[in-house]
Amino acid sequence: MLALAAGKLGLKTHVYCDASGPAFDVATVRTTAAFDDRAALARFAADVQAITYEFENIPLDTVRLLENLATVRPGAKALACAQDRLNEKQLARTLGARTADFAAIDGLDDLASALAGSITPPCVLKTRRFGYDGKGQAKILGPADAKAAWQAIGQKPAILEAFVNFSAEVSVVAVRGTDGAFAAYDVTENEHRDHILHRSTVPARIAPKAARDAVDTARRIAEALDYVGVFAVEFFALDFSGGEVLLVNEIAPRVHNSGHWTMDACLCSQFENHIRAVAGWPLGATARHANAEMLNLIGSEAADWAALAAEPGMSLHLYGKREARAGRKMGHIIRLTPRLP
Amino acid sequence: MLALAAGKLGLKTHVYCDASGPAFDVATVRTTAAFDDRAALARFAADVQAITYEFENIPLDTVRLLENLATVRPGAKALACAQDRLNEKQLARTLGARTADFAAIDGLDDLASALAGSITPPCVLKTRRFGYDGKGQAKILGPADAKAAWQAIGQKPAILEAFVNFSAEVSVVAVRGTDGAFAAYDVTENEHRDHILHRSTVPARIAPKAARDAVDTARRIAEALDYVGVFAVEFFALDFSGGEVLLVNEIAPRVHNSGHWTMDACLCSQFENHIRAVAGWPLGATARHANAEMLNLIGSEAADWAALAAEPGMSLHLYGKREARAGRKMGHIIRLTPRLP
Repeated sequence: MLALAAGKLGLKTHVYCDASGPAFDVATVRTTAAFDDRAALARFAADVQAITYEFENIPLDTVRLLENLATVRPGAKALACAQDRLNEKQLARTLGARTADFAAIDGLDDLASALAGSITPPCVLKTRRFGYDGKGQAKILGPADAKAAWQAIGQKPAILEAFVNFSAEVSVVAVRGTDGAFAAYDVTENEHRDHILHRSTVPARIAPKAARDAVDTARRIAEALDYVGVFAVEFFALDFSGGEVLLVNEIAPRVHNSGHWTMDACLCSQFENHIRAVAGWPLGATARHANAEMLNLIGSEAADWAALAAEPGMSLHLYGKREARAGRKMGHIIRLTPRLP
Repeated sequence: MLALAAGKLGLKTHVYCDASGPAFDVATVRTTAAFDDRAALARFAADVQAITYEFENIPLDTVRLLENLATVRPGAKALACAQDRLNEKQLARTLGARTADFAAIDGLDDLASALAGSITPPCVLKTRRFGYDGKGQAKILGPADAKAAWQAIGQKPAILEAFVNFSAEVSVVAVRGTDGAFAAYDVTENEHRDHILHRSTVPARIAPKAARDAVDTARRIAEALDYVGVFAVEFFALDFSGGEVLLVNEIAPRVHNSGHWTMDACLCSQFENHIRAVAGWPLGATARHANAEMLNLIGSEAADWAALAAEPGMSLHLYGKREARAGRKMGHIIRLTPRLP
């Protein structure tokens, strides 16, 4: 989707990946090579004017190496933070935002003492790094679950987080330009199933003040990270009798699934805005002309494409992945409804 | 833009062209070969599930050859008609539509007798085939211009058309599916400069009855040609004291410049609808959510891209052509304004 957005702007893309993938189908130039292939990375860097990535689990060393050879946006500083749940939470707190209670866990001793002290079960143990879509997580309902949870996540550096009894999950998808310009799409409400985003709707059912606070938090995070490009901040919204309190959950240093609705409801999608920012262009407008609902097509759900394509008022996006596996995102649909003035 | 639309639907594209061009930058597979290279055409046909074209001056023999090897939409029948101004006009008349007065011209004798009889100057001599953007045309203000005009158009089979003192130029961009389903975008008003489309606006300033008649004419043309895909019919609108009379000017068997506004004002653009039709999918909705203005960026106009990209409420499309030549379409911009209910 980034390559398609680049194509709309007349820009050529060179996609570097360690395996062939859907982006190759629409890229101008393709390189298949390992992320630690220094010679291939150097050839790639010499061929392009700016580099970005669309997956935060790319090795940090790869991005650091490329930064010495070419312009990389967003930079390694942002990636390093977003790759580590502990750093994310600490940054959010430093900037005055709230998060769930958490504790750093480097072994069973840490886990036992956290469970006995600051973090009351139920809670969840998450690897600090390389987790997504529920991978690298284990629930803890009481101290007796500690050992199994520690083994389930592979005994890796982790973070223990208190369960949050949220009333809604929301996200801010925003963009920051090379000149520091900042723009945010309207706050989106998200519903997960089996730890995978199922549905996003905009506008989110939160108070205007809470939405403004969320955007303000996103802006402060972007500034703290010298961020260039599109990113997302996910929040838990707690409802405390009339107002909302937002807890920062995750920072995603990339275009985000909860921003896919911008493809059809905005003149400039999150993908185009990311390309604009990475290329050093002026940012595009983030206004939306409609209310929107985005539904992911997971695994075999995309097999219904013909029926979905026939539904009026709906936009179908398919990713061209060769194989539909359980839990794999194969595409998404966007339904628009008129926005009342 | 067709390849980008295919990419949105997860479809792979194989672009065949006699020279490298912008579509190669976003195509999955590329072939550079002559349009009469039978071996290359056979390999191409064997690699794809459906074939279309985006330029009506592709040799008819190429399309006929491919039709024997693969599914081609639209077919040679539609192309043969649209490649010949005389056939186009005769088809329109056969279907009960009006056209400017015209006469077939195969030599200076034909031209002299037409000028003396049915077609009163001022009028315009146009080659029957391979004309676009004003190429292959010569004005005739009186019988004394006949010989120069005949030489100017290369002494090729031609059509002499009476000048039309139109109040507006409008077009219908429509799509017909493999099942005969038909859908049209709202009638667009077009303004040409130096024979090249400069500006399209929607809605067109013509009466609802005239707009319905235009769409009805487009539907009848598509049915007569067993058409599959997107096409455009250009009309001259004559204002006769309160009503409009529409004269069919040209039929374009392809996505059309006057339909570019659908990229930003509709959930399903003309490009996606063409891909849907060619792939045998259900057609997408042609409704628009906004009023739109499309301006072509010709030659050096695209050099202003940075200022254009910074204008709020505007969508910039650049084609990635390597060289900006005078008269060359380098991109376009689309401005949307709210549509009143």
